[in-house]
Amino acid sequence: MCALLLSVREGELIDKIEKAMGRRLDASRELRLGIGDDAALFRPRAGHELILTCDWFLEGTHFLRGKHPPDSVGWKCLARALSDVAAIGGVPRCFLLSLAIPASHTGRWLDKLLGGLLRASRRFACFLAGGDTTHRKEILLNITVVGEVQTGRAALRSGARPGDLIYVSGNLGEAELGLHVLKRSQRVANRRSPLTKKHLYPEPRIPLGQWLAKKRLVSAMMDLSDGLSSDLPRLCAASGVGGRIEASEVPRTGNLQAARKYGLDPTDLALHGGDDYELLFTVPPQKAKSLPRSFQGVKLSRIGRITQKAELVVCHENGRERPLPAGGWDPFRKGL
Amino acid sequence: MCALLLSVREGELIDKIEKAMGRRLDASRELRLGIGDDAALFRPRAGHELILTCDWFLEGTHFLRGKHPPDSVGWKCLARALSDVAAIGGVPRCFLLSLAIPASHTGRWLDKLLGGLLRASRRFACFLAGGDTTHRKEILLNITVVGEVQTGRAALRSGARPGDLIYVSGNLGEAELGLHVLKRSQRVANRRSPLTKKHLYPEPRIPLGQWLAKKRLVSAMMDLSDGLSSDLPRLCAASGVGGRIEASEVPRTGNLQAARKYGLDPTDLALHGGDDYELLFTVPPQKAKSLPRSFQGVKLSRIGRITQKAELVVCHENGRERPLPAGGWDPFRKGL
Repeated sequence: MCALLLSVREGELIDKIEKAMGRRLDASRELRLGIGDDAALFRPRAGHELILTCDWFLEGTHFLRGKHPPDSVGWKCLARALSDVAAIGGVPRCFLLSLAIPASHTGRWLDKLLGGLLRASRRFACFLAGGDTTHRKEILLNITVVGEVQTGRAALRSGARPGDLIYVSGNLGEAELGLHVLKRSQRVANRRSPLTKKHLYPEPRIPLGQWLAKKRLVSAMMDLSDGLSSDLPRLCAASGVGGRIEASEVPRTGNLQAARKYGLDPTDLALHGGDDYELLFTVPPQKAKSLPRSFQGVKLSRIGRITQKAELVVCHENGRERPLPAGGWDPFRKGL
Repeated sequence: MCALLLSVREGELIDKIEKAMGRRLDASRELRLGIGDDAALFRPRAGHELILTCDWFLEGTHFLRGKHPPDSVGWKCLARALSDVAAIGGVPRCFLLSLAIPASHTGRWLDKLLGGLLRASRRFACFLAGGDTTHRKEILLNITVVGEVQTGRAALRSGARPGDLIYVSGNLGEAELGLHVLKRSQRVANRRSPLTKKHLYPEPRIPLGQWLAKKRLVSAMMDLSDGLSSDLPRLCAASGVGGRIEASEVPRTGNLQAARKYGLDPTDLALHGGDDYELLFTVPPQKAKSLPRSFQGVKLSRIGRITQKAELVVCHENGRERPLPAGGWDPFRKGL
């Protein structure tokens, strides 16, 4: 440990990151690298607003060193920040990486992390512009993403109106199921298991978010990061409305066998499971007919309706109505 | 601890930050709040490039919970990120705050931190646009600052040419001296002591940086965050040049008594001390006459000259020349 600690310097770490990530940057002429200077320079496009968002990704809180493959740490730290850009209906442009890491992990482990980060960066066309590095016993990441949206076209949380229909993309609860699988496993998760794929390599719904915002189909939109029962109240609070959802309509995992194996109820997973990075959005009824059942292979499901009264109700399959309790992720109530 | 942990939720924490910081935001019409939505929206000005920079500010690495007053943590985390904008010659616009904190510190301690952050935010006209919060045993901060500079007017590290004169602002080594005072003290530092002022409440040289860039007086510029002996090599490497500095010309602390008390040599402090957030810049000789001896009360000192040969030499007062060894801050070599 001590020899390793002495063998790495901040400059070398920055060189390594630049080498692994930097070559792709030339693709964007509007971006001048911050790596090796005090800050990055970025030329925004006329007629656009910038989207600014940042996200923690911390060992112990958001990932486990012994369980999460390093390339999933790299992929996911960027993917979840990009999901905020998707939720606004924007186009990602560039990101800043803040990395704190022990010297012991600046070799192969970091190479793999950067590999996952690079894959996500290419996949979603969002390039590394700069960042900050430091030494730390635990691995800490923070990602800032800069995106763009045409002025006036941003989809906010605050536009939902009574009568609007509530939709979600994809299936809900699959990432939470994957987390259960991963936590029960004895070692680093299998990168290729379909059970943990959604937890390890989430797909921010960027094309869907852009399309919905561009076509002005949505009255409000956000991404599902903490779980439907935590996030829907936020959208409703921002809009000053309530909502009523049908439990039977909430799209859940098709992997009933795995859920059963871990003693999990698919409906509970779908209502409360976090980390899905699907989109939650509301559509005025007269626009609902313009909405396809799926978009580029991603299912769109109508799960309920916005109401005037500021309360959230879930109608269960047995016909009973219950208030929707917030059971999703809150770092101050529960950890990994 | 446990009751406290249960009594705070992420939403309440965000509300608290918004209440403490949010009111000032309306000042900037180009900014739509990210707090309470997925991301912030920011309207850049035409004819400008954006400056993007981020900075860690971590307990144990950058500050000590028992020694640093919480309002200095708030001030300094923003001030040091703003220093990167000053180094480019830009105008700060808005910032994102990522905060990880234990529930035990979300009361008075956080109030004071936000007080210091608000003071810096108002002082340097840089407003909170959004951020991310989570729960953590240690206090972790990350600040992203977005600034602007007229297209083509950014001062980079890479423009120094042989013959250019090397300048610094202010006195060097005073922050390092303050750190020594603080580390030897038994409790939280006195907020008003002039000895620790530069360490606790650094002043990013924003007006100076803007003026130098606007007047096109500098060929290269950066801020001194890790110490002259660590930062000057970076400027020279980026420019592909070397440098020769006169030890006797490097402006040092006037507080010789305090330095002596702690067994510190003022010249060593000035050459190697970190955290000053002064500006280091190079000026072509024909422009040097346009440079005043001070700018808005901040002293400007000529300390040496850029050379063709890619090496750094320091001429000591006894006439001896020595290579300048990097003795400044590197988190992978030494901590607080």
